[in-house]
Amino acid sequence: MNVEDYMNDLGQRARVAASAIARADTGLKNKALLMMAEALDKKRQALIEANALDLEAARKNGLDPAMLDRLALKESTIDGMIEGLRQVSALPDPVGGITDMNYRPSGIQVGKMRVPLGVIGIIYESRPNVTVEAASLCLKSGNATILRGGSEAIHSNQAVAACIQEGLQRAGLPMDAVQVVETTDRAAVGRLITMPEYVDVIVPRGGKGLIERISRDAKVTVIKHLDGICHVYIDAQADRSKAVNISLNAKTHRYGTCNTMETLLVHEAVAPEMLADLADRYLSAGVELRGCESARALVPSMKKATEDDWSTEYLAPVLSVKVVSSMDEAIMHINRYGSHHTDAIVTENYTLARRFLREVDSSSVIVNASTRFADGFEYGLGAEIGISTDKIHARGPVGLEGLTSQKYVVLGDGHIRQ
Amino acid sequence: MNVEDYMNDLGQRARVAASAIARADTGLKNKALLMMAEALDKKRQALIEANALDLEAARKNGLDPAMLDRLALKESTIDGMIEGLRQVSALPDPVGGITDMNYRPSGIQVGKMRVPLGVIGIIYESRPNVTVEAASLCLKSGNATILRGGSEAIHSNQAVAACIQEGLQRAGLPMDAVQVVETTDRAAVGRLITMPEYVDVIVPRGGKGLIERISRDAKVTVIKHLDGICHVYIDAQADRSKAVNISLNAKTHRYGTCNTMETLLVHEAVAPEMLADLADRYLSAGVELRGCESARALVPSMKKATEDDWSTEYLAPVLSVKVVSSMDEAIMHINRYGSHHTDAIVTENYTLARRFLREVDSSSVIVNASTRFADGFEYGLGAEIGISTDKIHARGPVGLEGLTSQKYVVLGDGHIRQ
Repeated sequence: MNVEDYMNDLGQRARVAASAIARADTGLKNKALLMMAEALDKKRQALIEANALDLEAARKNGLDPAMLDRLALKESTIDGMIEGLRQVSALPDPVGGITDMNYRPSGIQVGKMRVPLGVIGIIYESRPNVTVEAASLCLKSGNATILRGGSEAIHSNQAVAACIQEGLQRAGLPMDAVQVVETTDRAAVGRLITMPEYVDVIVPRGGKGLIERISRDAKVTVIKHLDGICHVYIDAQADRSKAVNISLNAKTHRYGTCNTMETLLVHEAVAPEMLADLADRYLSAGVELRGCESARALVPSMKKATEDDWSTEYLAPVLSVKVVSSMDEAIMHINRYGSHHTDAIVTENYTLARRFLREVDSSSVIVNASTRFADGFEYGLGAEIGISTDKIHARGPVGLEGLTSQKYVVLGDGHIRQ
Repeated sequence: MNVEDYMNDLGQRARVAASAIARADTGLKNKALLMMAEALDKKRQALIEANALDLEAARKNGLDPAMLDRLALKESTIDGMIEGLRQVSALPDPVGGITDMNYRPSGIQVGKMRVPLGVIGIIYESRPNVTVEAASLCLKSGNATILRGGSEAIHSNQAVAACIQEGLQRAGLPMDAVQVVETTDRAAVGRLITMPEYVDVIVPRGGKGLIERISRDAKVTVIKHLDGICHVYIDAQADRSKAVNISLNAKTHRYGTCNTMETLLVHEAVAPEMLADLADRYLSAGVELRGCESARALVPSMKKATEDDWSTEYLAPVLSVKVVSSMDEAIMHINRYGSHHTDAIVTENYTLARRFLREVDSSSVIVNASTRFADGFEYGLGAEIGISTDKIHARGPVGLEGLTSQKYVVLGDGHIRQ
């Protein structure tokens, strides 16, 4: 079978399974998730052996240590997958939830019922644990899934998929509800993202290059963010200790995450008293600073920031620093150079805080807290399939609800339109 | 200036205006809407003269009477536009609304704030009053708009646009917030739907051919429905008089609307006692019936329905009729042949009603009421820019809320991630 026929077949199976999964009881879906966890626990040996094949091939192909680390299925990774499945099984089921049921003057009662999206395609790299994470969220939200992992993790993903299949089967749910693409042919991705007749949404998880390619070529909605160029703005009326704590945490808590601050904006009224102290703290944490002219006048040891720095996601211990003359300048900078991901203000001023919340065009806007909070778990979604910086459908961390839609339900008693 | 440069210019202006409109006070937006109404009232003569040019050209080009009727700006059409503007000004402003603000265990408070989508492109045919309707909904929801009407209404649309511009100006809002494409070159549409850098969403309003073309070629989300193949299913446990009233109203209240019933499904247990009576009523209303074999056995005067009939939106006094042996067969028929628009069941059975609501995959699912209720006004949205049969972003009648998104807002007190 050629790749196109193979993908069409997966697509057709997914469509059929989708309507069964959309109707499935909450109890059955939870049972499947717990049975998957049991299967993973039982098959630890098989998982680690399959993973060893991938690791061996990866070492031969000269993958760098960071990629090898992401690829490795350790006992602790398996523990994490099992725990994740249990957590998702404990989350409330969004499907079928009815809200806003109100009587209208005509006498009908109108409300909204939450429904699954249908079939979700997930495209990801390296980490085999994404297979379980993505499958569990799609299943719980009543969707069928087609998963396409990286070719370097093919054996691991198939071993994980076998456990997922076992869980579905033991719960009496259709095994086609979660399908793993078994070919490493790149054309499979090209087909997966251009078959709206079978796939409703694509969620890519991986590097910026992968996501850009997919967004450009996809014929269906892509839930994604390209990068996280996040800002903290220290206002003239910031509380000094909050400003120091937040701007250090936002940069140094973790360097490689999308909600890490990449540019610090400081109001000129407080820059003289704050920047030197902050610079000392960043330098002792090993963070390289790149400043605008005004920042460098206050902290001469800073490197000079270029125009490119303002739109760079370092994902590294590097921070660009800019002194601004007003909150308006800060907001303009954020909306122009940022990535509409997560931006924070530190201020005690009520009016400025309210304006910042309204006017910053980002998926998360924060007052007096670290950008590192922008995360599905921290926001109480229970889990997160990704973060969206778009405005269509979902924006910000996407949990179970972001994998659903709402239809209208109308209850009458023989009502007709006059 | 060539068409591409012209459209790019409109797009850039719209982007700039969008950020001003997103921030605009509710009061200013309402003022602009009321000033637009005033301008329309003051310029009735100019509107009717501009419309006369379009009507004259249309007559010369041999447009059919129905199209001429849609194109005509009568005094009553202008009254309707004015009343519509006043109604939209009275609707609650969705922008900036904050919901679900909850404290998390970390101490931060997390909620969602409603935000405009950005720039909305509207593509429509014939009716010049759509210009005002679309502009008012986009403005109230904080979005900038680019409107592309049919070339046959170009003079009327420009005259209406002048009133819209006057309203924006008198309220001190940027006039680029609502722009009307002034070229009749078809390439303008091609560009409008393929510039995601300037336009976030397209809403097409017109015939199925137009909407199919736009959906196929667009590079941004299209809020749309292709057709309305709506069903009423009369269950074995239907109340007879409700069944008669609803199935007559759903077909005969209006023939040309998308929420009109096109196929009647009747359970075999009640078909013998109901179909002959219903057929008499339909025939005396002038409705042609096309039935399956079982239906024709009961009502021999029915024409024979072909396979095509089940997936045809007649928009005319024609109805296809099918006898089914169970609700499951009815649901399978609806999900297979319908257009996921609006479908109703008539039943007194609690369990079947609940299952029908859950399992019918349509944007509106109705129990014991006419499909004709599927409408933004009837649902209490206050207005409607269109109906979506998709599941991404909006589903069902789309009002002001469907033209917005939600971002996360986080309030802290110096909180950092541990």
